[in-house]
Amino acid sequence: MPQGQPLVVPQDGLTTRQRRNRPLVVVHTGAMKGKSTAAFGLALRGWAQGWDIGVFQFVKSAKWKVGEENAFRALGRVHDETGEGGPVEWHKMGEGWSWSRKQGSDDDHAAAAAEGWLEIKRRLETERHDVYVLDEFTYPMKWGWVDVDDVVKTLVERPGHQHVIITGRDADLRLIEAADLVMETGKIKHPMDAGQKGQRGIEW
Amino acid sequence: MPQGQPLVVPQDGLTTRQRRNRPLVVVHTGAMKGKSTAAFGLALRGWAQGWDIGVFQFVKSAKWKVGEENAFRALGRVHDETGEGGPVEWHKMGEGWSWSRKQGSDDDHAAAAAEGWLEIKRRLETERHDVYVLDEFTYPMKWGWVDVDDVVKTLVERPGHQHVIITGRDADLRLIEAADLVMETGKIKHPMDAGQKGQRGIEW
Repeated sequence: MPQGQPLVVPQDGLTTRQRRNRPLVVVHTGAMKGKSTAAFGLALRGWAQGWDIGVFQFVKSAKWKVGEENAFRALGRVHDETGEGGPVEWHKMGEGWSWSRKQGSDDDHAAAAAEGWLEIKRRLETERHDVYVLDEFTYPMKWGWVDVDDVVKTLVERPGHQHVIITGRDADLRLIEAADLVMETGKIKHPMDAGQKGQRGIEW
Repeated sequence: MPQGQPLVVPQDGLTTRQRRNRPLVVVHTGAMKGKSTAAFGLALRGWAQGWDIGVFQFVKSAKWKVGEENAFRALGRVHDETGEGGPVEWHKMGEGWSWSRKQGSDDDHAAAAAEGWLEIKRRLETERHDVYVLDEFTYPMKWGWVDVDDVVKTLVERPGHQHVIITGRDADLRLIEAADLVMETGKIKHPMDAGQKGQRGIEW
């Protein structure tokens, strides 16, 4: 597909190259499945660019994303062994964050989510990754476990060239306002309409 | 995310397990970008299941998908070397199909597209792959380079347990009718609206 041309060239004092290479906040939202799938597809492309990928899963039980996790861990090993692509870190709240001393005991989901966000904030400050996937991060925002204004301010003011991809339903309007790209996956037709349940390899 | 429950249990004589494991025809269509990204995200999950992945790119110049191609080729090597995940084949029309003697000289796009479809048809008959990604395949259908009724009949009657994912704009209504899952990616907000052109690692 061709890249397309923007309809308007903004008067922001930036060159086309500066504007083109602006780091993005991407939100995949909407009621349908496919949000995380699309986000991981984007991260895959970043990996191939040699970008450093950090995935943070904000769900208690992360069993549904085990396919993506295995694939990205394999890609991370490819990088470590051959130098191809970028390094990959995959962290999940469900088992206690890997950097946390409280591993395996995060019964307090609100505290665990807040701890996850604090770590991401630290990493954004030190420009640790090139691409951050904050999977299902809209939920802790929705439930008040992390402060939406803090998230938005941190994203807007993050230094360097760090892309941040956030998935989940019901993205807060302040996040949508701050994002550069908001994608919504819609269904035209779904096998569940025909009485079919989810299946391994397709739905998880 | 929970799997959800179908609203209706069909009277089709199948058990839940049989119905659940039915192979799918998935179409990613719509005017926005993100169709292929989502399709490759789905293929990534299939790879992690150990499924055999066959990608067929129906575009003259395949330069925009080089990130996905590199990542999937790396995953294919992981499989070949360690047995993890599934095997991967990546074929593109742009350079002449890899199985074709006419490699590098497919100036006749219509003939090249028809040849690609013929090979996919052969592979479906012999159950060569578990997942087929027919990237941008809606265009040769739209332009009459392949016969839509033949495609639909072949997909509907394909043997075994083969998933087929088709991407591209303007999917034919007969294909949508025959598909099990049709996803449309919609934009809420896009950086091109703010005068930003596509960038490496994000758009291609």
